[in-house]
Amino acid sequence: MTAEPNKDASALHWVPEDLSDRVAYGFVKALRFVADRFFAQRYGHRAVVLETVAAVPGMVGGLLQHLKALRHIRDDQGWIRELLEEADNERMHLMTFVQIAKPTLAERWVILLTQAVFYNVYFWLYLFAPKTAHRVVGYFEEEAVASYTHFLAQIDSGIQADVPAPPIAIDYWNLSANATLRDVVLAVREDEAGHRDRNHSFADDLKRRQQPAGKIASDGAGG
Amino acid sequence: MTAEPNKDASALHWVPEDLSDRVAYGFVKALRFVADRFFAQRYGHRAVVLETVAAVPGMVGGLLQHLKALRHIRDDQGWIRELLEEADNERMHLMTFVQIAKPTLAERWVILLTQAVFYNVYFWLYLFAPKTAHRVVGYFEEEAVASYTHFLAQIDSGIQADVPAPPIAIDYWNLSANATLRDVVLAVREDEAGHRDRNHSFADDLKRRQQPAGKIASDGAGG
Ligand SMILES: [Fe+2]
Ligand SMILES: [Fe+2]
Ligand SMILES: [Fe+2]
Ligand SMILES: [Fe+2]
Repeated sequence: MTAEPNKDASALHWVPEDLSDRVAYGFVKALRFVADRFFAQRYGHRAVVLETVAAVPGMVGGLLQHLKALRHIRDDQGWIRELLEEADNERMHLMTFVQIAKPTLAERWVILLTQAVFYNVYFWLYLFAPKTAHRVVGYFEEEAVASYTHFLAQIDSGIQADVPAPPIAIDYWNLSANATLRDVVLAVREDEAGHRDRNHSFADDLKRRQQPAGKIASDGAGG
Repeated sequence: MTAEPNKDASALHWVPEDLSDRVAYGFVKALRFVADRFFAQRYGHRAVVLETVAAVPGMVGGLLQHLKALRHIRDDQGWIRELLEEADNERMHLMTFVQIAKPTLAERWVILLTQAVFYNVYFWLYLFAPKTAHRVVGYFEEEAVASYTHFLAQIDSGIQADVPAPPIAIDYWNLSANATLRDVVLAVREDEAGHRDRNHSFADDLKRRQQPAGKIASDGAGG
């Protein structure tokens, strides 16, 4: 269940309901703990590194849904296109933020290592527990919304200079010619809120299919 | 180098130039030998099973180019979108031909087994030898053009009934309401010829990048 589009991340959009939800939530909170230690308040760098991670799940989900549709010669009900578009959107976030903060050499190594590990973890998770995989992304995106909200606060308080928006971002989000970083972060946060809602609802769909018919009505809790 | 869009498959569009080209060509010819034994003249069934295979490379190429663009935080120059569109187009071929020939139980098992093997083979091939991977697809598509040319001959000689085109195909290729199987096969063959040209030229691009600058001029042979 996706709730009202609460963008200040003051409340969880999906309250863990079962063990797999709690595992997904715990996994994401652990990732956040590591990111908080590594990046502290450097939100520009944080955005670059985290977007290289964020662009993986949509592509893996699209791949595995595609292979499944082929194996079963069955329509995918639009899931593949949506997941691949999410991946494409995240890659645009990355190409945008790299204009604002260049990764350090240490960060480049973190990116390589994280991709090698995370791609494999997520691939196997999606293969055997797609509901949990989408829930992980839902929670990941809740953290992304929170993180970009903090980034906005830094811009508003002057800690981060509100530099002009890079041309790639003005093109992609159709911003005005004098748009600034603040407008870019607002647009990105909007995207992340959309991913959050879609992934929680993909997970809800898969959960509904697992349940016996009589229990469907009770599925609307949480958030 | 892609040559004139010779659609009757009377000549190879890329004549093997080096060892990796010959390996790619041999691999595809071996696949064709197996398919000829298994399907003989049953081109409808052949199309269903082969399209489940044909839809894999574009997705794998898209995935690996995406992961590479993320790791190196670098633009992909449009490759990802083109490769994913190829995969999507092949899935539409599959969804079309399954309306014309339903796979038998034996064919369903062949599909499962082939996907498990081919996905992995192609993934590792693309990861370590993307030029050869695109060359394999180029040759595979040359065989697809030949195979659909034989299918057309069967329709024209009346061995295969020229049934009405399924609605999904009329929608997808914008065919007229009274289109038949013959129109569908023509449209699909046109797609395959496009994939053949694009994949040979992706391979050419990668080959060019491997060569010392002085040798680029000699790259125009073949076809
Ligand atoms: Fe993002
Ligand atoms: Fe996102
Ligand atoms: Fe095809
Ligand atoms: Fe093709």
